Amino acid sequence: MPSRRKRDFPVDQVRRFLEPGPVVLVSSAWNGERDVMTMGWHMMLGWDLVGTYIWDANRTHHLVRKSRECVINLPTADLLDTVVRIGNCSGREGDKFERFGLKTTAGEKVSAPLIDACHANFECVLHEMRNTDLYNLFVWQVVKAHVATSPKLPRTVHYRGGGRFMLSGEEVSRRRLFKPEMLDE
Amino acid sequence: MPSRRKRDFPVDQVRRFLEPGPVVLVSSAWNGERDVMTMGWHMMLGWDLVGTYIWDANRTHHLVRKSRECVINLPTADLLDTVVRIGNCSGREGDKFERFGLKTTAGEKVSAPLIDACHANFECVLHEMRNTDLYNLFVWQVVKAHVATSPKLPRTVHYRGGGRFMLSGEEVSRRRLFKPEMLDE
Repeated sequence: MPSRRKRDFPVDQVRRFLEPGPVVLVSSAWNGERDVMTMGWHMMLGWDLVGTYIWDANRTHHLVRKSRECVINLPTADLLDTVVRIGNCSGREGDKFERFGLKTTAGEKVSAPLIDACHANFECVLHEMRNTDLYNLFVWQVVKAHVATSPKLPRTVHYRGGGRFMLSGEEVSRRRLFKPEMLDE
Repeated sequence: MPSRRKRDFPVDQVRRFLEPGPVVLVSSAWNGERDVMTMGWHMMLGWDLVGTYIWDANRTHHLVRKSRECVINLPTADLLDTVVRIGNCSGREGDKFERFGLKTTAGEKVSAPLIDACHANFECVLHEMRNTDLYNLFVWQVVKAHVATSPKLPRTVHYRGGGRFMLSGEEVSRRRLFKPEMLDE
Protein backbone atom coordinates (compact mmCIF):
# COMPACT_ATOMS: atom_id res chain seq x y z
CA MET A 1 0.00 0.00 0.00
CA PRO A 2 1.35 3.43 -0.89
CA SER A 3 2.35 5.88 1.79
CA ARG A 4 0.95 9.37 1.62
CA ARG A 5 2.62 12.73 1.87
CA LYS A 6 1.26 14.44 4.96
CA ARG A 7 1.28 17.82 6.59
CA ASP A 8 0.67 19.00 10.11
CA PHE A 9 -2.98 19.78 10.76
CA PRO A 10 -4.55 21.81 13.59
CA VAL A 11 -5.57 19.46 16.40
CA ASP A 12 -8.67 21.52 17.13
CA GLN A 13 -9.99 20.85 13.61
CA VAL A 14 -9.89 17.05 13.58
CA ARG A 15 -13.70 17.13 13.79
CA ARG A 16 -13.62 17.70 10.00
CA PHE A 17 -12.58 14.07 9.62
CA LEU A 18 -14.11 12.38 12.66
CA GLU A 19 -17.52 14.06 13.00
CA PRO A 20 -18.86 12.52 9.75
CA GLY A 21 -18.55 9.14 11.49
CA PRO A 22 -15.95 7.08 9.58
CA VAL A 23 -14.54 3.75 10.64
CA VAL A 24 -11.04 4.33 12.03
CA LEU A 25 -8.06 2.17 12.89
CA VAL A 26 -6.75 2.55 16.42
CA SER A 27 -3.08 1.68 16.84
CA SER A 28 -1.37 1.21 20.17
CA ALA A 29 1.94 0.09 21.66
CA TRP A 30 3.14 -0.80 25.13
CA ASN A 31 6.14 -2.56 26.51
CA GLY A 32 7.30 -4.01 23.20
CA GLU A 33 3.83 -5.06 22.08
CA ARG A 34 1.72 -3.29 19.47
CA ASP A 35 -1.71 -3.75 17.97
CA VAL A 36 -4.29 -2.17 15.69
CA MET A 37 -8.07 -2.49 15.78
CA THR A 38 -10.99 -1.39 13.61
CA MET A 39 -13.42 0.94 15.38
CA GLY A 40 -16.71 2.56 14.49
CA TRP A 41 -17.90 3.81 17.88
CA HIS A 42 -16.41 7.24 18.56
CA MET A 43 -17.50 10.86 18.94
CA MET A 44 -16.19 14.37 19.41
CA LEU A 45 -16.36 15.53 23.03
CA GLY A 46 -14.63 18.87 22.50
CA TRP A 47 -12.58 20.48 19.72
CA ASP A 48 -9.57 18.30 20.50
CA LEU A 49 -11.27 15.57 22.57
CA VAL A 50 -12.47 12.27 21.17
CA GLY A 51 -14.37 9.50 22.96
CA THR A 52 -13.82 5.93 21.80
CA TYR A 53 -15.50 2.66 22.73
CA ILE A 54 -12.83 -0.04 22.99
CA TRP A 55 -14.25 -3.35 24.14
CA ASP A 56 -12.38 -4.82 27.08
CA ALA A 57 -11.97 -8.14 25.26
CA ASN A 58 -9.78 -6.37 22.69
CA ARG A 59 -6.03 -6.52 23.11
CA THR A 60 -5.99 -2.81 22.27
CA HIS A 61 -8.00 -2.14 25.43
CA HIS A 62 -5.20 -3.64 27.50
CA LEU A 63 -2.45 -1.79 25.61
CA VAL A 64 -4.04 1.66 25.78
CA ARG A 65 -4.91 1.27 29.45
CA LYS A 66 -1.23 0.65 30.14
CA SER A 67 0.34 3.11 27.69
CA ARG A 68 -2.33 5.82 28.00
CA GLU A 69 -1.71 6.63 24.32
CA CYS A 70 -3.04 5.70 20.90
CA VAL A 71 -3.14 6.84 17.29
CA ILE A 72 -6.48 7.21 15.53
CA ASN A 73 -5.81 6.48 11.84
CA LEU A 74 -8.29 7.36 9.10
CA PRO A 75 -8.47 4.72 6.34
CA THR A 76 -10.07 5.30 2.95
CA ALA A 77 -12.15 3.05 0.70
CA ASP A 78 -9.11 1.57 -1.04
CA LEU A 79 -8.17 0.01 2.31
CA LEU A 80 -11.60 -1.44 3.03
CA ASP A 81 -10.65 -5.11 2.73
CA THR A 82 -7.75 -4.59 5.11
CA VAL A 83 -9.95 -2.63 7.50
CA VAL A 84 -12.42 -5.53 7.61
CA ARG A 85 -9.69 -8.16 7.99
CA ILE A 86 -8.12 -6.22 10.86
CA GLY A 87 -11.52 -6.17 12.53
CA ASN A 88 -11.95 -9.91 12.09
CA CYS A 89 -8.77 -11.22 13.67
CA SER A 90 -7.00 -10.81 16.97
CA GLY A 91 -3.56 -9.40 17.71
CA ARG A 92 -3.10 -12.53 19.79
CA GLU A 93 -2.80 -14.46 16.48
CA GLY A 94 0.29 -12.47 15.50
CA ASP A 95 1.40 -8.94 14.65
CA LYS A 96 -1.31 -7.37 12.50
CA PHE A 97 1.00 -4.77 10.99
CA GLU A 98 3.19 -7.50 9.50
CA ARG A 99 0.26 -9.70 8.58
CA PHE A 100 -1.40 -6.93 6.56
CA GLY A 101 1.75 -5.23 5.29
CA LEU A 102 1.05 -2.00 7.12
CA LYS A 103 4.03 0.34 7.01
CA THR A 104 4.25 2.62 9.98
CA THR A 105 5.98 5.76 11.12
CA ALA A 106 6.88 6.53 14.71
CA GLY A 107 4.68 9.05 16.44
CA GLU A 108 6.14 12.40 17.41
CA LYS A 109 4.30 12.64 20.70
CA VAL A 110 3.28 9.04 21.38
CA SER A 111 4.86 5.62 21.05
CA ALA A 112 1.91 4.13 19.15
CA PRO A 113 2.63 3.75 15.41
CA LEU A 114 1.11 5.87 12.64
CA ILE A 115 -0.21 3.84 9.70
CA ASP A 116 1.34 5.34 6.57
CA ALA A 117 -1.36 4.23 4.14
CA CYS A 118 -4.10 6.06 6.05
CA HIS A 119 -5.28 9.51 4.98
CA ALA A 120 -4.79 10.98 8.46
CA ASN A 121 -3.16 10.06 11.76
CA PHE A 122 -4.17 11.65 15.03
CA GLU A 123 -1.77 11.14 17.93
CA CYS A 124 -3.71 10.96 21.18
CA VAL A 125 -2.95 10.92 24.88
CA LEU A 126 -5.45 9.70 27.43
CA HIS A 127 -7.53 12.54 28.82
CA GLU A 128 -9.37 10.38 31.32
CA MET A 129 -10.88 6.96 31.75
CA ARG A 130 -13.33 7.37 34.56
CA ASN A 131 -15.96 5.84 32.25
CA THR A 132 -13.87 3.00 31.03
CA ASP A 133 -15.12 0.36 33.43
CA LEU A 134 -18.72 1.43 32.84
CA TYR A 135 -18.79 1.90 29.04
CA ASN A 136 -15.38 0.92 27.68
CA LEU A 137 -15.22 4.64 26.93
CA PHE A 138 -11.79 6.25 26.75
CA VAL A 139 -11.57 10.02 26.32
CA TRP A 140 -8.56 11.13 24.27
CA GLN A 141 -6.90 14.46 23.67
CA VAL A 142 -5.48 14.83 20.18
CA VAL A 143 -1.97 16.24 20.61
CA LYS A 144 -0.66 16.00 17.04
CA ALA A 145 -2.46 15.61 13.72
CA HIS A 146 -1.06 14.58 10.33
CA VAL A 147 -3.25 14.77 7.22
CA ALA A 148 -2.48 13.78 3.62
CA THR A 149 -2.04 16.73 1.27
CA SER A 150 -4.41 15.13 -1.24
CA PRO A 151 -7.16 14.32 -1.93
CA LYS A 152 -8.90 17.16 -0.14
CA LEU A 153 -11.96 14.98 0.48
CA PRO A 154 -10.95 11.40 1.24
CA ARG A 155 -13.45 8.65 0.48
CA THR A 156 -14.10 7.27 3.94
CA VAL A 157 -15.94 4.10 4.99
CA HIS A 158 -18.83 4.09 7.47
CA TYR A 159 -20.13 0.91 9.05
CA ARG A 160 -23.83 0.00 8.92
CA GLY A 161 -23.56 -3.36 10.67
CA GLY A 162 -24.22 -6.73 9.06
CA GLY A 163 -20.98 -6.57 7.08
CA ARG A 164 -22.15 -3.58 5.03
CA PHE A 165 -20.49 -0.19 4.65
CA MET A 166 -21.53 3.21 3.37
CA LEU A 167 -18.88 5.04 1.38
CA SER A 168 -18.77 8.81 1.79
CA GLY A 169 -20.49 10.61 -1.07
CA GLU A 170 -20.57 14.10 -2.48
CA GLU A 171 -19.92 17.28 -0.49
CA VAL A 172 -22.44 20.10 -0.38
CA SER A 173 -22.05 23.51 1.22
CA ARG A 174 -24.71 25.38 3.13
CA ARG A 175 -22.39 28.12 4.42
CA ARG A 176 -24.86 30.77 3.27
CA LEU A 177 -27.41 29.48 5.79
CA PHE A 178 -25.04 29.69 8.76
CA LYS A 179 -24.73 32.55 11.18
CA PRO A 180 -21.09 33.70 11.05
CA GLU A 181 -20.55 32.74 14.70
CA MET A 182 -21.72 29.19 13.97
CA LEU A 183 -18.93 28.63 11.44
CA ASP A 184 -15.66 27.34 12.82
CA GLU A 185 -13.56 28.81 10.01
CA MET B 1 -42.75 18.18 4.05
CA PRO B 2 -44.22 14.73 3.49
CA SER B 3 -44.67 12.35 6.36
CA ARG B 4 -43.34 8.85 5.97
CA ARG B 5 -44.93 5.49 6.58
CA LYS B 6 -42.99 3.84 9.37
CA ARG B 7 -42.69 0.49 11.04
CA ASP B 8 -41.42 -0.63 14.39
CA PHE B 9 -37.72 -1.40 14.35
CA PRO B 10 -35.63 -3.39 16.85
CA VAL B 11 -34.09 -1.00 19.37
CA ASP B 12 -30.91 -3.05 19.52
CA GLN B 13 -30.30 -2.45 15.80
CA VAL B 14 -30.39 1.35 15.72
CA ARG B 15 -26.63 1.27 15.18
CA ARG B 16 -27.44 0.63 11.50
CA PHE B 17 -28.53 4.26 11.25
CA LEU B 18 -26.43 5.98 13.92
CA GLU B 19 -23.03 4.32 13.62
CA PRO B 20 -22.35 5.80 10.14
CA GLY B 21 -22.33 9.21 11.85
CA PRO B 22 -25.24 11.25 10.44
CA VAL B 23 -26.43 14.59 11.70
CA VAL B 24 -29.58 14.04 13.76
CA LEU B 25 -32.36 16.22 15.14
CA VAL B 26 -32.95 15.90 18.88
CA SER B 27 -36.47 16.78 19.98
CA SER B 28 -37.51 17.31 23.56
CA ALA B 29 -40.47 18.47 25.64
CA TRP B 30 -41.00 19.40 29.25
CA ASN B 31 -43.67 21.19 31.17
CA GLY B 32 -45.46 22.61 28.12
CA GLU B 33 -42.25 23.62 26.33
CA ARG B 34 -40.69 21.79 23.39
CA ASP B 35 -37.61 22.23 21.25
CA VAL B 36 -35.51 20.62 18.54
CA MET B 37 -31.79 20.92 17.89
CA THR B 38 -29.34 19.79 15.22
CA MET B 39 -26.61 17.48 16.52
CA GLY B 40 -23.54 15.84 15.05
CA TRP B 41 -21.71 14.63 18.16
CA HIS B 42 -23.04 11.23 19.17
CA MET B 43 -21.90 7.62 19.41
CA MET B 44 -23.09 4.13 20.17
CA LEU B 45 -22.22 3.02 23.71
CA GLY B 46 -24.03 -0.32 23.58
CA TRP B 47 -26.56 -2.00 21.29
CA ASP B 48 -29.37 0.22 22.59
CA LEU B 49 -27.31 2.97 24.26
CA VAL B 50 -26.40 6.26 22.57
CA GLY B 51 -24.20 9.04 23.92
CA THR B 52 -24.96 12.61 22.83
CA TYR B 53 -23.14 15.89 23.36
CA ILE B 54 -25.71 18.59 24.09
CA TRP B 55 -24.10 21.91 24.90
CA ASP B 56 -25.37 23.44 28.13
CA ALA B 57 -26.13 26.73 26.35
CA ASN B 58 -28.78 24.92 24.29
CA ARG B 59 -32.38 25.10 25.42
CA THR B 60 -32.56 21.37 24.67
CA HIS B 61 -29.98 20.74 27.39
CA HIS B 62 -32.34 22.26 29.93
CA LEU B 63 -35.40 20.40 28.65
CA VAL B 64 -33.79 16.96 28.56
CA ARG B 65 -32.25 17.40 32.00
CA LYS B 66 -35.73 18.03 33.36
CA SER B 67 -37.73 15.54 31.29
CA ARG B 68 -35.04 12.82 31.13
CA GLU B 69 -36.38 11.96 27.66
CA CYS B 70 -35.72 12.83 24.03
CA VAL B 71 -36.31 11.63 20.49
CA ILE B 72 -33.38 11.21 18.12
CA ASN B 73 -34.76 11.89 14.62
CA LEU B 74 -32.84 10.96 11.47
CA PRO B 75 -33.21 13.55 8.68
CA THR B 76 -32.29 12.92 5.04
CA ALA B 77 -30.70 15.12 2.39
CA ASP B 78 -34.02 16.59 1.25
CA LEU B 79 -34.31 18.20 4.71
CA LEU B 80 -30.79 19.66 4.71
CA ASP B 81 -31.79 23.33 4.55
CA THR B 82 -34.17 22.85 7.45
CA VAL B 83 -31.54 20.93 9.41
CA VAL B 84 -29.11 23.83 8.98
CA ARG B 85 -31.71 26.46 9.84
CA ILE B 86 -32.69 24.58 13.00
CA GLY B 87 -29.03 24.56 13.99
CA ASN B 88 -28.71 28.29 13.41
CA CYS B 89 -31.51 29.63 15.55
CA SER B 90 -32.62 29.26 19.15
CA GLY B 91 -35.85 27.87 20.54
CA ARG B 92 -35.91 31.05 22.61
CA GLU B 93 -36.85 32.91 19.39
CA GLY B 94 -40.07 30.91 19.06
CA ASP B 95 -41.30 27.37 18.50
CA LYS B 96 -39.06 25.77 15.90
CA PHE B 97 -41.63 23.14 14.90
CA GLU B 98 -44.08 25.85 13.82
CA ARG B 99 -41.37 28.02 12.32
CA PHE B 100 -40.12 25.23 10.07
CA GLY B 101 -43.45 23.51 9.45
CA LEU B 102 -42.41 20.30 11.18
CA LYS B 103 -45.35 17.98 11.68
CA THR B 104 -44.99 15.74 14.68
CA THR B 105 -46.44 12.61 16.18
CA ALA B 106 -46.64 11.91 19.89
CA GLY B 107 -44.14 9.43 21.22
CA GLU B 108 -45.38 6.08 22.49
CA LYS B 109 -42.94 5.90 25.37
CA VAL B 110 -41.81 9.52 25.78
CA SER B 111 -43.43 12.94 25.70
CA ALA B 112 -40.91 14.39 23.23
CA PRO B 113 -42.34 14.71 19.71
CA LEU B 114 -41.38 12.52 16.73
CA ILE B 115 -40.66 14.50 13.55
CA ASP B 116 -42.79 12.95 10.82
CA ALA B 117 -40.59 14.01 7.88
CA CYS B 118 -37.54 12.21 9.27
CA HIS B 119 -36.59 8.75 8.05
CA ALA B 120 -36.40 7.33 11.57
CA ASN B 121 -37.36 8.31 15.11
CA PHE B 122 -35.72 6.78 18.16
CA GLU B 123 -37.53 7.35 21.45
CA CYS B 124 -34.99 7.58 24.24
CA VAL B 125 -35.02 7.68 28.03
CA LEU B 126 -32.09 8.95 30.03
CA HIS B 127 -29.79 6.11 31.04
CA GLU B 128 -27.51 8.32 33.11
CA MET B 129 -25.95 11.75 33.17
CA ARG B 130 -23.00 11.37 35.47
CA ASN B 131 -20.86 12.86 32.69
CA THR B 132 -23.15 15.68 31.83
CA ASP B 133 -21.47 18.35 33.90
CA LEU B 134 -18.07 17.27 32.64
CA TYR B 135 -18.71 16.74 28.91
CA ASN B 136 -22.31 17.71 28.21
CA LEU B 137 -22.61 13.98 27.59
CA PHE B 138 -25.99 12.36 28.09
CA VAL B 139 -26.29 8.59 27.77
CA TRP B 140 -29.64 7.45 26.37
CA GLN B 141 -31.38 4.11 26.15
CA VAL B 142 -33.45 3.69 23.00
CA VAL B 143 -36.80 2.29 24.13
CA LYS B 144 -38.78 2.47 20.89
CA ALA B 145 -37.65 2.81 17.28
CA HIS B 146 -39.69 3.78 14.21
CA VAL B 147 -38.14 3.52 10.73
CA ALA B 148 -39.59 4.46 7.33
CA THR B 149 -40.49 1.48 5.17
CA SER B 150 -38.64 3.04 2.22
CA PRO B 151 -36.09 3.82 0.98
CA LYS B 152 -34.04 1.02 2.46
CA LEU B 153 -30.91 3.19 2.43
CA PRO B 154 -31.75 6.80 3.31
CA ARG B 155 -29.46 9.53 2.03
CA THR B 156 -28.14 10.96 5.29
CA VAL B 157 -26.13 14.15 5.89
CA HIS B 158 -22.83 14.19 7.77
CA TYR B 159 -21.25 17.41 9.02
CA ARG B 160 -17.66 18.30 8.17
CA GLY B 161 -17.58 21.70 9.87
CA GLY B 162 -17.25 25.04 8.11
CA GLY B 163 -20.82 24.86 6.78
CA ARG B 164 -20.06 21.81 4.61
CA PHE B 165 -21.75 18.43 4.62
CA MET B 166 -20.97 15.00 3.22
CA LEU B 167 -23.95 13.14 1.79
CA SER B 168 -23.97 9.39 2.29
CA GLY B 169 -22.83 7.53 -0.81
CA GLU B 170 -23.03 4.01 -2.14
CA GLU B 171 -23.26 0.87 -0.03
CA VAL B 172 -20.77 -1.95 -0.36
CA SER B 173 -20.83 -5.34 1.35
CA ARG B 174 -17.86 -7.18 2.76
CA ARG B 175 -19.88 -9.89 4.49
CA ARG B 176 -17.69 -12.56 2.93
CA LEU B 177 -14.69 -11.23 4.89
CA PHE B 178 -16.44 -11.39 8.28
CA LYS B 179 -16.28 -14.21 10.75
CA PRO B 180 -19.87 -15.36 11.35
CA GLU B 181 -19.70 -14.33 15.03
CA MET B 182 -18.70 -10.80 14.01
CA LEU B 183 -21.93 -10.27 12.05
CA ASP B 184 -24.90 -8.95 14.00
CA GLU B 185 -27.50 -10.49 11.69
